[in-house]
Amino acid sequence: MVTIKDVAREAGVSVATVSRALNDNGYVGVDTRKKVMAAIEKLNYSPNEVARSLYKRKSRLIGLLLPDITNPFFPQLARGVEDELSRAGFRLLLGNSDENVEKEMEYIQTFVQNNVTGIISATNHLDDQIYNELKLPLVLLDRISEDYPAVYSDGREGGRLAARTLIEKGAKRITLMKGPAHVRPAQDRFQGAIEELSHADIDFSVLSTTSYSFEEALGWAKELFEQFPDTDGVIASNDIVGIAIIHEALKIGKQIPEDVQIIGYDDIPQSGLSYPTLSTIRQPAYDMGRQAAQLLIKLIKKEQHIECKIQMPVELVERNTTRKK
Amino acid sequence: MVTIKDVAREAGVSVATVSRALNDNGYVGVDTRKKVMAAIEKLNYSPNEVARSLYKRKSRLIGLLLPDITNPFFPQLARGVEDELSRAGFRLLLGNSDENVEKEMEYIQTFVQNNVTGIISATNHLDDQIYNELKLPLVLLDRISEDYPAVYSDGREGGRLAARTLIEKGAKRITLMKGPAHVRPAQDRFQGAIEELSHADIDFSVLSTTSYSFEEALGWAKELFEQFPDTDGVIASNDIVGIAIIHEALKIGKQIPEDVQIIGYDDIPQSGLSYPTLSTIRQPAYDMGRQAAQLLIKLIKKEQHIECKIQMPVELVERNTTRKK
Repeated sequence: MVTIKDVAREAGVSVATVSRALNDNGYVGVDTRKKVMAAIEKLNYSPNEVARSLYKRKSRLIGLLLPDITNPFFPQLARGVEDELSRAGFRLLLGNSDENVEKEMEYIQTFVQNNVTGIISATNHLDDQIYNELKLPLVLLDRISEDYPAVYSDGREGGRLAARTLIEKGAKRITLMKGPAHVRPAQDRFQGAIEELSHADIDFSVLSTTSYSFEEALGWAKELFEQFPDTDGVIASNDIVGIAIIHEALKIGKQIPEDVQIIGYDDIPQSGLSYPTLSTIRQPAYDMGRQAAQLLIKLIKKEQHIECKIQMPVELVERNTTRKK
Repeated sequence: MVTIKDVAREAGVSVATVSRALNDNGYVGVDTRKKVMAAIEKLNYSPNEVARSLYKRKSRLIGLLLPDITNPFFPQLARGVEDELSRAGFRLLLGNSDENVEKEMEYIQTFVQNNVTGIISATNHLDDQIYNELKLPLVLLDRISEDYPAVYSDGREGGRLAARTLIEKGAKRITLMKGPAHVRPAQDRFQGAIEELSHADIDFSVLSTTSYSFEEALGWAKELFEQFPDTDGVIASNDIVGIAIIHEALKIGKQIPEDVQIIGYDDIPQSGLSYPTLSTIRQPAYDMGRQAAQLLIKLIKKEQHIECKIQMPVELVERNTTRKK
């Protein structure tokens, strides 16, 4: 088996230099790096990551904790994280918490036991002791906190934009769907929408929901039209629910957008395929994932001048569930 | 820090016994196991996975390679794998290959470098040297091969079932969409459908497609109705494309299912939310993931009498894009 010593000998440098070059840690001149890389290639050297991890107490593994990748917003985030980490030579340990605190703590613990170098987490349980005691770089994704670096989108503006759009397009009896209470971004966008609706001269109602799941989406949609049969504008809690509302509206014979306008949230890939296609507020999910990965890598490398809160912009995507003019 | 020696002393057994109990490897009596577990709990011992991995040349990590989790079929598979592995104390290293062979090989290589204990892969590149040289348990998922253990669904029967359904429900001019040529399960279901269509007394046409992506789905749907404007039954290459075909059919004024019937493939969660809801052939994706994880764990534990090919059944899910009887 080829060892780091063989590489050093082939490149005509010290073992420490090869190690620095491999680990991107400390200065290595351009020419030296080239020599080392040529030797690695020639000898087909493949460093054992576990041995390296034990030696350095660091690995090239990153833990990523998400609520549930079967919700189509999260695979986009995950791909952004993965693609960016991959470019920097890191690999992803993935866990889905199902927003269950025990499951989440178990994952964080095993991430630590596997010597991950850093963690990216979309958690609702930051107050838990395990986060306080974490001795690793941590980046929050799709979540906000005073105390930790975080990448999120501007939920309040997103909520405002959704409400403003329906108001401008002539909706007079708007129903605002409130997302699950324990999900912080859902509350931000709710607050943004309330703010805008409160200042407008229109009627509006609030329908509280407790999940984003596919299974329950049609149930919320039914409840919406039962409770507010005259609503002419719906701010859906997310795109899944928005697509379910399209389904229900058509089923009970409403014209979209003539009788009822609908605006979603997220811009998941499916939203361009519904009929009519769903107008929505776009969160740049893939880019949020990439930014979180970049931020974490900077924290791991202890780079100075790190921007620790990255708020990404949201935008209106006008499709066919809102009126044209 | 608490070490394995402390645990052995507390439990009154040897270090080797604690190790056997921890690693589920070799015989440990019930009483002894209880003593060890009590000592672990009392001392709050948390074995360092990396050190253990180096010592045993094994870790509790499993590599999972999928084409792309932003395709909604794959998060279901991934969750099945993860939930089952999780129960057995394993964690998931995730990679998306984008069906790109270089990317795939890079992932497999880093899985090995991180001392994964086994790999689950939905690969189209089994003939590559890296798989031949792999000295780890490997389970194929959603893929078939003579040479490796595999979990897949009955694609040929799925194709037959889709075709038979449209024929029985009175479609006379069926269009069969052929999935990407390099994806083996797509070809199996294509063959199954062809078989059934060839034996029926009806007209049919084939439209070849090269991707399952959201971005191109509406393009295939447009092409379908341009090339075969009179088609009254479509066997879509998968549910994403099926949903896009619903969109396009409604857009050009066709009634579903009166003018055109549509049947999808996969039964992704979205298919119950489209309007009309999509009839489809269901693959038990979550269970396929679970089965693959169970099979891999058996291989790791070297259990005898392992069933190495697991073919899962498919079923027709009748919704509203096919006629009622």
